[in-house]
Amino acid sequence: MSPCEKYRARRHFPWKMGVQIFKIIMITTQVVSGVVQRGEYYKPQKTILKDYRGVDEDDYSVAVYTQQGVYDSLFYIFDQYSQLGQLSVGPISYAEDGDEKLLPVTVCKESYKRGSIHPSDEAFDIDAQLEKGDLILLTSITQTLLLFRLIDLKITFQLKGINLQTVRSRELPDCYSFFVTITFDNQCHSGKVKIYLDIDSESSACRDWKISGTVQKNTHYLLIFDGFVILVCITSACLCSRSIVLAVKLLQRFSRYVEDNYNRKVCEDDQSEFLNGWYLLVILSDLLTIIGSILKMEIQAKSLTSYDVCSIFLGTATLLVWVGVIRYLGYFQKYNVLILTMKAAFPKVLRFCCCAGMIYLGYTFCGWIVLGPYHEKFEGLSLVAECLFSLVNGDDMFATFAQLKDKNTLVWLFSRVYLYSFISLFIYMVLSLFIALITDSYETIKKYQKDGFPLTDLQKFLREDKGFIEESIEIDVQHQYSVLCCCKRYLQYF
Amino acid sequence: MSPCEKYRARRHFPWKMGVQIFKIIMITTQVVSGVVQRGEYYKPQKTILKDYRGVDEDDYSVAVYTQQGVYDSLFYIFDQYSQLGQLSVGPISYAEDGDEKLLPVTVCKESYKRGSIHPSDEAFDIDAQLEKGDLILLTSITQTLLLFRLIDLKITFQLKGINLQTVRSRELPDCYSFFVTITFDNQCHSGKVKIYLDIDSESSACRDWKISGTVQKNTHYLLIFDGFVILVCITSACLCSRSIVLAVKLLQRFSRYVEDNYNRKVCEDDQSEFLNGWYLLVILSDLLTIIGSILKMEIQAKSLTSYDVCSIFLGTATLLVWVGVIRYLGYFQKYNVLILTMKAAFPKVLRFCCCAGMIYLGYTFCGWIVLGPYHEKFEGLSLVAECLFSLVNGDDMFATFAQLKDKNTLVWLFSRVYLYSFISLFIYMVLSLFIALITDSYETIKKYQKDGFPLTDLQKFLREDKGFIEESIEIDVQHQYSVLCCCKRYLQYF
Amino acid sequence: MSPCEKYRARRHFPWKMGVQIFKIIMITTQVVSGVVQRGEYYKPQKTILKDYRGVDEDDYSVAVYTQQGVYDSLFYIFDQYSQLGQLSVGPISYAEDGDEKLLPVTVCKESYKRGSIHPSDEAFDIDAQLEKGDLILLTSITQTLLLFRLIDLKITFQLKGINLQTVRSRELPDCYSFFVTITFDNQCHSGKVKIYLDIDSESSACRDWKISGTVQKNTHYLLIFDGFVILVCITSACLCSRSIVLAVKLLQRFSRYVEDNYNRKVCEDDQSEFLNGWYLLVILSDLLTIIGSILKMEIQAKSLTSYDVCSIFLGTATLLVWVGVIRYLGYFQKYNVLILTMKAAFPKVLRFCCCAGMIYLGYTFCGWIVLGPYHEKFEGLSLVAECLFSLVNGDDMFATFAQLKDKNTLVWLFSRVYLYSFISLFIYMVLSLFIALITDSYETIKKYQKDGFPLTDLQKFLREDKGFIEESIEIDVQHQYSVLCCCKRYLQYF
Amino acid sequence: MSPCEKYRARRHFPWKMGVQIFKIIMITTQVVSGVVQRGEYYKPQKTILKDYRGVDEDDYSVAVYTQQGVYDSLFYIFDQYSQLGQLSVGPISYAEDGDEKLLPVTVCKESYKRGSIHPSDEAFDIDAQLEKGDLILLTSITQTLLLFRLIDLKITFQLKGINLQTVRSRELPDCYSFFVTITFDNQCHSGKVKIYLDIDSESSACRDWKISGTVQKNTHYLLIFDGFVILVCITSACLCSRSIVLAVKLLQRFSRYVEDNYNRKVCEDDQSEFLNGWYLLVILSDLLTIIGSILKMEIQAKSLTSYDVCSIFLGTATLLVWVGVIRYLGYFQKYNVLILTMKAAFPKVLRFCCCAGMIYLGYTFCGWIVLGPYHEKFEGLSLVAECLFSLVNGDDMFATFAQLKDKNTLVWLFSRVYLYSFISLFIYMVLSLFIALITDSYETIKKYQKDGFPLTDLQKFLREDKGFIEESIEIDVQHQYSVLCCCKRYLQYF
Repeated sequence: MSPCEKYRARRHFPWKMGVQIFKIIMITTQVVSGVVQRGEYYKPQKTILKDYRGVDEDDYSVAVYTQQGVYDSLFYIFDQYSQLGQLSVGPISYAEDGDEKLLPVTVCKESYKRGSIHPSDEAFDIDAQLEKGDLILLTSITQTLLLFRLIDLKITFQLKGINLQTVRSRELPDCYSFFVTITFDNQCHSGKVKIYLDIDSESSACRDWKISGTVQKNTHYLLIFDGFVILVCITSACLCSRSIVLAVKLLQRFSRYVEDNYNRKVCEDDQSEFLNGWYLLVILSDLLTIIGSILKMEIQAKSLTSYDVCSIFLGTATLLVWVGVIRYLGYFQKYNVLILTMKAAFPKVLRFCCCAGMIYLGYTFCGWIVLGPYHEKFEGLSLVAECLFSLVNGDDMFATFAQLKDKNTLVWLFSRVYLYSFISLFIYMVLSLFIALITDSYETIKKYQKDGFPLTDLQKFLREDKGFIEESIEIDVQHQYSVLCCCKRYLQYF
Repeated sequence: MSPCEKYRARRHFPWKMGVQIFKIIMITTQVVSGVVQRGEYYKPQKTILKDYRGVDEDDYSVAVYTQQGVYDSLFYIFDQYSQLGQLSVGPISYAEDGDEKLLPVTVCKESYKRGSIHPSDEAFDIDAQLEKGDLILLTSITQTLLLFRLIDLKITFQLKGINLQTVRSRELPDCYSFFVTITFDNQCHSGKVKIYLDIDSESSACRDWKISGTVQKNTHYLLIFDGFVILVCITSACLCSRSIVLAVKLLQRFSRYVEDNYNRKVCEDDQSEFLNGWYLLVILSDLLTIIGSILKMEIQAKSLTSYDVCSIFLGTATLLVWVGVIRYLGYFQKYNVLILTMKAAFPKVLRFCCCAGMIYLGYTFCGWIVLGPYHEKFEGLSLVAECLFSLVNGDDMFATFAQLKDKNTLVWLFSRVYLYSFISLFIYMVLSLFIALITDSYETIKKYQKDGFPLTDLQKFLREDKGFIEESIEIDVQHQYSVLCCCKRYLQYF
Repeated sequence: MSPCEKYRARRHFPWKMGVQIFKIIMITTQVVSGVVQRGEYYKPQKTILKDYRGVDEDDYSVAVYTQQGVYDSLFYIFDQYSQLGQLSVGPISYAEDGDEKLLPVTVCKESYKRGSIHPSDEAFDIDAQLEKGDLILLTSITQTLLLFRLIDLKITFQLKGINLQTVRSRELPDCYSFFVTITFDNQCHSGKVKIYLDIDSESSACRDWKISGTVQKNTHYLLIFDGFVILVCITSACLCSRSIVLAVKLLQRFSRYVEDNYNRKVCEDDQSEFLNGWYLLVILSDLLTIIGSILKMEIQAKSLTSYDVCSIFLGTATLLVWVGVIRYLGYFQKYNVLILTMKAAFPKVLRFCCCAGMIYLGYTFCGWIVLGPYHEKFEGLSLVAECLFSLVNGDDMFATFAQLKDKNTLVWLFSRVYLYSFISLFIYMVLSLFIALITDSYETIKKYQKDGFPLTDLQKFLREDKGFIEESIEIDVQHQYSVLCCCKRYLQYF
Repeated sequence: MSPCEKYRARRHFPWKMGVQIFKIIMITTQVVSGVVQRGEYYKPQKTILKDYRGVDEDDYSVAVYTQQGVYDSLFYIFDQYSQLGQLSVGPISYAEDGDEKLLPVTVCKESYKRGSIHPSDEAFDIDAQLEKGDLILLTSITQTLLLFRLIDLKITFQLKGINLQTVRSRELPDCYSFFVTITFDNQCHSGKVKIYLDIDSESSACRDWKISGTVQKNTHYLLIFDGFVILVCITSACLCSRSIVLAVKLLQRFSRYVEDNYNRKVCEDDQSEFLNGWYLLVILSDLLTIIGSILKMEIQAKSLTSYDVCSIFLGTATLLVWVGVIRYLGYFQKYNVLILTMKAAFPKVLRFCCCAGMIYLGYTFCGWIVLGPYHEKFEGLSLVAECLFSLVNGDDMFATFAQLKDKNTLVWLFSRVYLYSFISLFIYMVLSLFIALITDSYETIKKYQKDGFPLTDLQKFLREDKGFIEESIEIDVQHQYSVLCCCKRYLQYF
């Protein structure tokens, strides 16, 4: 019975549905307003050191191939650091320790302790012990850097910044410490030195601040709204928990009855029919919203800075809340077909994914091992998985083929066989079988709708055996509802 | 009965079809000729300031990261502006006010009123009131621009241009005013100053002009053609309106008859059968064409410049007119299957889109909130929707995966779960279900064609009850057609 | 009856099949050897003027935005031309006329005859008559080029080259004349001058040549091979024509018989059953091969240079020959299902393409008109068609969406509605319906294979009526085969 | 009977399955550990000469268009070579011969012996004999290089390097010799000189080495692990071979029995039912693993360097091992449907691929011949095949269309017809037919599962004829199992 019919039949306002719809509106509002007011994140890592030569914006790494290139990069870094004040557009400066003394730049190299190599003679003499040392005098760098012995070189320094952006949205600015590490990586000794830039940031309240000329933003309303959202979610979670608890109790009583009277167990299928998956979904989404909202309030109160965790909680909650709407669409006969089809097809699809997954896993491992050194899309296990997944779903195949063009013949041949077989197998066999599965489920459900669904044991039992009902009535006169009605109502409610 | 059969049966020339076919030819001709003669649009915004350093052609924005970069950009702009005469290839110059005095360049900055920041000490003292002011002496800019206090800086000036291109197609050239705004945006105080270029253009008739050596183009023919198109469309709209009015009248009489004799209402399905959707389509397309043609004539007469609105009207009209052709294809038995299938499947598909839309919406919100700060494809709500839509339909997946690579582990994990689940769900479940829906509809229609379509109430009624017909004849002898024939003919006409 | 069975049954070697298989081998060999020996085409247009600044390799056009840019490009061209001898790597030099005098460089400008413009005053005075003139003194260019009046400027000159590449493959080198035209296009007066480079080449035999130290390549073998291919194709075409002629004769006799005895016409379906489509395919491919081979021989004999036409003929012939192989696969029962399915589905698919094509055409026109000025993929009618076709088949959708991002709101909205509706309609409705059509055809064919194909009139007739056979025997005793056998054999041969 | 049921029924531990699962874990561990410890491959070819101007990182080739460009490239190469010591970051130096003398750089040119060309006069006089010669004095290069006669110029030298990277993973470093060849290719005489860089590397043990300060890595554990993997694989292969041998013996006895008693042969289908494909798969994967592991041990012992071969063996083995897991999934009823469907559909799909392959081949040849000179994706036969394959599976179609835009009209038209027809045919007809095939197979299998599979002759025989069993019992009393049981068990085991 849908909430609508319920209302008509019993003049019983569908509280649960009302709460859910209200919740959707609330959560979406909360989330959208949060995103809109968030503005641009403070991403200093992208901007502070942007002008460092050769540091690519995308992955913060660059490669140099000559000794001169290494030294140039090195001096460029010191140069930029020394003139930070005149350089940067943002409010940033050097970090100081407690006594207002500037913290030093640390240049730390790691190299083989001793060594001489003579490639021409195919001779070398190396002390493989690692020597770590700080380079303090910058002028001595060129002398002390014997590149062939060098393993890596790390430049670390610390910067301080203030996020003035929030002043305008009438929030208190945070102070940031940036721990910058620049690594010259020569571990491979392959003639290429990679330079990485890595910035960790840490925010804290500023020690000494004064803002005038503005009213501190009234965040009360936001807090109240968030609190209200939490309240709604608690209500919703309680209502659903109550339904689940009732269902479990009913199940227990029912199974006791069956055991007493018929001496057999209630089978698992019947048991699971008492547990409504939708309720679990709603409770999960409520929990996520509550945790997310609390985190959000903490962030607004400046006692936490974990934006990501908060947004993951709230984001997932929103996703689940919207998915939950489908349940109410299922009350309409015609929408129900589709939902039932998806429900019926889901285990089959999962099962088939399992089979296909084995082949997929095999291809992933195989591609990683063989093609890894030749193609950047195959360099890591997760990369291979993504690449193959993308290929099946219509990614740029030709580019993948082309990048494997100039390699040696054996690998070329292997890559062709590998790619053709994988793509053909998955696009022509696997995808088609998915369609066959879904089509089959759809037709089954349509036939059921016409001829009636096959009765489960429980339903058969309820239809045939009136004893349970009568007994229920006898036993449960003190209860608000008779078990049977409850049982029936519960089952109808789906 | 198709127009063809009608002609054979009654020697009645199918005027309506003739008009429609004629209309298709006319509108397509009009539209194509319009596009062909339109030539290249006058897009000065792309070209005038093209040489401004750092202003990228695509999105007219660039980012600088150093103080020097900000000043350089600023002076470059003034430099280019001052030598506009020697620089530009096109007919463009400075704007003047009424007294032939050059309009000044305005440099307007907005900054915090007062402030000193000491990031090293985690201390700041800011007056958050905004101070707006025009900078007039260019030389003083470097002194007065304290970048850390700056919020934004706007340079605005005005240019004038003449679109000489139209002289060659023997139309009168328009004069354009360009309102140029260059914004240095430092709202985020994140160490990156974005520079936007924004040009609004306004066209007007030139005040003082003289063209010799050419005959003014004879636009009479074009006007006549446009007028003729309008006439045809009015005729077509009238014919269709008449059919609809007749149908509505018939419906009224029919429902009165049913109410009188059988004491029951005509159900909604039967009512809707009297309303032919194709007629509504034709009328809509006619209205769009008429409005579009009038706008086109106004544009040619230089009294309007809203090219976009005109082309949207005419474009949509063309689309509808061509879609209308399908109706006539439906008269052929074999084509009809396909059209009927699409018609039958349409509500199911819409209904299913509704369900899938909920999940889609959930994913959209979730992706926007969580991945927004990490991936440019997820920065706005409409962008996320487009990105997900593209992913389902076979866009570059790997690139999307790859751009989320270097982020922190939590977000990385979330993005993987998010993308894999979304793509699998939509490509393997949702798309397959679409195919199942369509296949099912197709088979239903094929069975109907073999065994006969199920009769609607109205058809049953018409078949069984002769009373309505006789009564109609008795009552409507003065009418041109008996209601029944009319009714039958009307229904056959579909 | 398949050739294989025929052979077993009658010890009749299947000449036709033998010829066909032999032909496939021959043509593929011919084509592959042709491509392999062709080497790299002589494409001087890509290379001679490659260093011209700003001339992009892809589409030979570049745009400049400043007056200085125009003059620089102009002088750069003259500069490069003057030092061609020291510059070019290839065997190229200036063209001479009959008297060994160098042909001049022509600089031809087209501009408005007279004009003064004052954009600031919104005033202009223009003589729209076009003035064409050659500029001879290069130094005077800057004086005479008033850019705002300029419409276009054409620089034309002629170069000569020798294609020495062929010496190595022991063919005679050709001499080439290159007619170079460089156009400065300012028709739009929009502040952007486009520069196009256009090179026409013409090959001819060199006038005066001497090659020593090598044997002239023995092209006899190639000619013999080509001649042999032609011979095989003629044989094949003759055999097939004979079959068709026999079939037509049989049809005539059969229809005469039916008319005489039963007084009715043979229906069109039955008539078409006498015409074997495969034979037509084979004859068409034979004709193409013959023409292509003759062209190839002419090219080798240096009397023709139309490589493209020749390769289109030979290429299409190869395609058809390979497609013809399917016919022989159809003799195997299990392969036949698939071929029959495709044959049965083909008309349905075509019919449906027709319907979908109407909507497609509507969208194409509409997109061209409305989005043309805003997106380069929508600039031409064929471009729009390709773009939409690509979108349906899984092209980069997001890029298409993204490029329409920064436009005005109305167009933005329209483009979203346009793209979403088009893609959804075609991917979810149209593609699914294709699948439904094919699945349906497949099942029909499978049922036929199990239960027997429905008999055509002709087959029924042959089965029932023995009169035709007897009469045939009586009449045609002098014929080699009785009509009936012939008829039966003919029909079995399919 | 699944291993699980077997265990329950007979308390017979399923050794074979245990071995297989153990093997999967072992091989995956081996492979993953191998990849993880492999680190980055030593790819000096990418890095040594990276700074050579114009040498593109992707395909190691560049083109120059002017004489000056050729000379510049040449001198740049000598320059970089001469200062290799100061340039390179990696441990690399010049090669020496046995007597510690540096090996020389060889510059070898090939050109026409004698020749003068006068393109202006369309005259040339060439001695087509090739002259090869070494250029030793670098200063004389400009004099001796008459570019128009030059065919190619090869610079070859040799470098030595040491792969120090492995010191850190406590393996012994290899010494490498790099044979560098730089080719200036002017074979086409088309005004473009292509420069290729080609590096062959050869690794060998260093002649004279000393490593101190580190313990030689204990590779015993790795060797033991590898050995253990080999052992497991041998066990697995033996178990499977035994099963196959038993099956073959059983088959022989069975066919002898049938021949003796019924005087007929066992048909091939029945024979093939005795051969379990899974066993063959397992044995194949075992063999690959064994070979791969042996190669891996050799590589670790520095006696081999063929990483590629080893990784192809191990990779393919991993793929097969994972695919083998599907067999055990097949023991579950619900998974079995899917596996059986794929098995049933496989021959149909292959057969259909055959048909489609003919058309595909035709299109491939045709595209190669006609579009080869105009589009880089059509330059080679395998490229065309990949391009078409990618297009069908959703590659960037528009880009392919667009690149064929500016060509001559005939080719443009042909390319449109070619691409539209190919894509439509394959995406709409062929892909849909795949889906029809798979859907059909799925439904067949589902019906079989409901109604029982059709019995093969063998099964019918076993069911009906008890004689074989009795006889078997009589004969094979000394055997452990009766043939029948064996036979039955064997067949159940599938």
